[in-house]
Amino acid sequence: MNSELILIGDELLYGKTRDLNAFWLGPFLKDHGMSLERVTIVRDSLKEIHAALSESLARVDLVFTSGGLGPTGDDLTKEALATFFKKELFESEEAKEIVKGNYARFNRVWKPEQNNYHIVPRDFLVTSNPQGQAPGLAYMENGKGVFAGPGVPREFKALVEKIYFPHIEKFFQGRIEKAHSKLSLRTYGVPEEIIFFELYPGLWEKLEKIGKVSSLPLSNYGGVDIIVQVEKEKEKQGLQEFKRLVENSPLAKHIWQWGSKELPEYVIEKALEKKLKFAFAESCSGGLSSSRITDIAGSSEAFKGSVVCYDEEIKKNLLQVKEETLKNYTVYSSECAEEMAKGVRALLNVDIAISLTGIAGPTGGTEKNPVGTVYIGWSHHKGSGAERFDLRGDRVTLKERFSQRGLLTLLRELTSF
Amino acid sequence: MNSELILIGDELLYGKTRDLNAFWLGPFLKDHGMSLERVTIVRDSLKEIHAALSESLARVDLVFTSGGLGPTGDDLTKEALATFFKKELFESEEAKEIVKGNYARFNRVWKPEQNNYHIVPRDFLVTSNPQGQAPGLAYMENGKGVFAGPGVPREFKALVEKIYFPHIEKFFQGRIEKAHSKLSLRTYGVPEEIIFFELYPGLWEKLEKIGKVSSLPLSNYGGVDIIVQVEKEKEKQGLQEFKRLVENSPLAKHIWQWGSKELPEYVIEKALEKKLKFAFAESCSGGLSSSRITDIAGSSEAFKGSVVCYDEEIKKNLLQVKEETLKNYTVYSSECAEEMAKGVRALLNVDIAISLTGIAGPTGGTEKNPVGTVYIGWSHHKGSGAERFDLRGDRVTLKERFSQRGLLTLLRELTSF
Repeated sequence: MNSELILIGDELLYGKTRDLNAFWLGPFLKDHGMSLERVTIVRDSLKEIHAALSESLARVDLVFTSGGLGPTGDDLTKEALATFFKKELFESEEAKEIVKGNYARFNRVWKPEQNNYHIVPRDFLVTSNPQGQAPGLAYMENGKGVFAGPGVPREFKALVEKIYFPHIEKFFQGRIEKAHSKLSLRTYGVPEEIIFFELYPGLWEKLEKIGKVSSLPLSNYGGVDIIVQVEKEKEKQGLQEFKRLVENSPLAKHIWQWGSKELPEYVIEKALEKKLKFAFAESCSGGLSSSRITDIAGSSEAFKGSVVCYDEEIKKNLLQVKEETLKNYTVYSSECAEEMAKGVRALLNVDIAISLTGIAGPTGGTEKNPVGTVYIGWSHHKGSGAERFDLRGDRVTLKERFSQRGLLTLLRELTSF
Repeated sequence: MNSELILIGDELLYGKTRDLNAFWLGPFLKDHGMSLERVTIVRDSLKEIHAALSESLARVDLVFTSGGLGPTGDDLTKEALATFFKKELFESEEAKEIVKGNYARFNRVWKPEQNNYHIVPRDFLVTSNPQGQAPGLAYMENGKGVFAGPGVPREFKALVEKIYFPHIEKFFQGRIEKAHSKLSLRTYGVPEEIIFFELYPGLWEKLEKIGKVSSLPLSNYGGVDIIVQVEKEKEKQGLQEFKRLVENSPLAKHIWQWGSKELPEYVIEKALEKKLKFAFAESCSGGLSSSRITDIAGSSEAFKGSVVCYDEEIKKNLLQVKEETLKNYTVYSSECAEEMAKGVRALLNVDIAISLTGIAGPTGGTEKNPVGTVYIGWSHHKGSGAERFDLRGDRVTLKERFSQRGLLTLLRELTSF
């Protein structure tokens, strides 16, 4: 059961909004035995929307749209769908009730004078919108279905998941496939081409005997995921084979997870298992490590807090980094990182602390410590230490990579005792 | 001069990678007098890539691709371009030199046995890659040009900006338009439909007399941008007219910026103007405000640091929130927020401090303080205070909206003296 998604909106084409709906819909469909084959982003233009609908419906039977359902003049999706399917737009009593209900969920009262939400194309399915005001609109005929969702990600997700999916399952009964499993290996510190051409030539071909292979360098946080897709019933056997191929290879030491969890979630899981509390002293990562950790629900059980010590004064006065350490080694040093980790561990009363000090750029680099240099320190009841890494990227990417390195150090130390 | 972008990669269709290249390319082209008309995301499949190329080239004369240039088995772009234009792939001496140069920039040595980077389609332009190893590839003929870029955003950006753009300018000479100006107004705290249907009915129609109007609700941080596009020479007059329409309207108090800067950058600019140093005490935003501020180069001149006080103990011991405040009002209160702001201002020795305490969920809400409640405190030499906001969204969205609200309070206080 193949599908396509049409994202509608000028804002997506001139860099104002980053799409999140394709990012969510792909895996959602995959998990439900369907496939997202193509995504098209078009302008707020009737002609463009018509062209994209016509092309997508020529290729697949299930099409989602996202965006352009709002009340303003650049919201054209409803009109585009009506004219595309040659259906008149009319004032629907049913739609009125649905819109009233959508508003009531937000403790607001809707009246038809406010907007045109109750004017819908004839013969369309009109639905409630669990997270928004505009009603959901769908059209199913001749074995083809078009489901129009809002652009706002939380609205799109709730509408597709809770309202549209049951209709899709029913309408396309018998055509939705058995799901595949993804065997996922996460590595860090070695580029994709080194893995397959220097560290382990022939790995790709060997993995292809297990299933469909893909290799994904993660552009922001760094690292490479290797994924093998197998049929659900071959999952256990495939994973055994995958592990056997890799576990005693030179790749082994770069593996940080067999699985597909994100690092912050994985770190919290490990900390909770060991009943350990942690904290950060963040200089060059500027609070990003803390923010990534607190994105995870339940992180407060393991994470106590952090000191973002951007200014040198905070390192000295609050984290007790010694004057002479700064004088002899500067703030960019293993010595400073180690003292920061010790200092924040004592200050915030945690089991393990991680510190980061380095240079995110674009200026401030020196020959000894160019932009991208980071010193990561750790401290716990068994000891402390620090190491240096040399990473690459622009300022924001470097912050991401610094924080990833810090979390990997935290993971290593958490699992070491 | 219209163009399209084809994003190639399974990872974009099953939710592993979020595209950043369309997000960057759209505004880049706009700023250079061109337009990105459509984006298509396709799988790693020769057939799909061929179809997308053929469709895009039927609509426009300039096509970019992104992704699939790497060395592994799922990188098919080079082969797809060669077969699409019916050009043989051959070992190019010129490409060898370019690849050697690309590697040398990273202090690495390349040999032809390592990968097939030197094998390129005949008659293609082969270029250096300022931020990566694989060479750039482009084909220009019969007034049409295809420019293949890597998937990694910093590589794509550098290649298009520094290497491809001069070729594009030359090849499409005379067809690149005069640029338009965007008049941008940023508001917060009032939904799109309230603005145009309750607060200021008729605004849209009035703005349309100035230029092409669009209204953009920002799904993550919240707020609505209203943008009017005018010809470059009408910029000054258009802006005057836009301001006149809005400045004494009920919308005025929701405006936080005439312009298009992101809030963290704008806040830093104002702090630098006033020579004021600031800090945060972040509980429910978990370090995100600090991280957004430190994404901006030069932020260290205005931002000293923060305390991420996730645990109550840190609020009490480090920020000096009084035991009785917590007992009488709990941690979710204006009283606690105000003490946190005062505490962190003293602790980190800054001019202005902002604090955030609230509930990001998904659990922990109460009737009095449901998920989405946030108390934002401020403290500076003229006084202190706190206010409550009730926001909506999932955990990550709420963190973003909390931090946005905190930064808006910081902006207000910064500009108040």
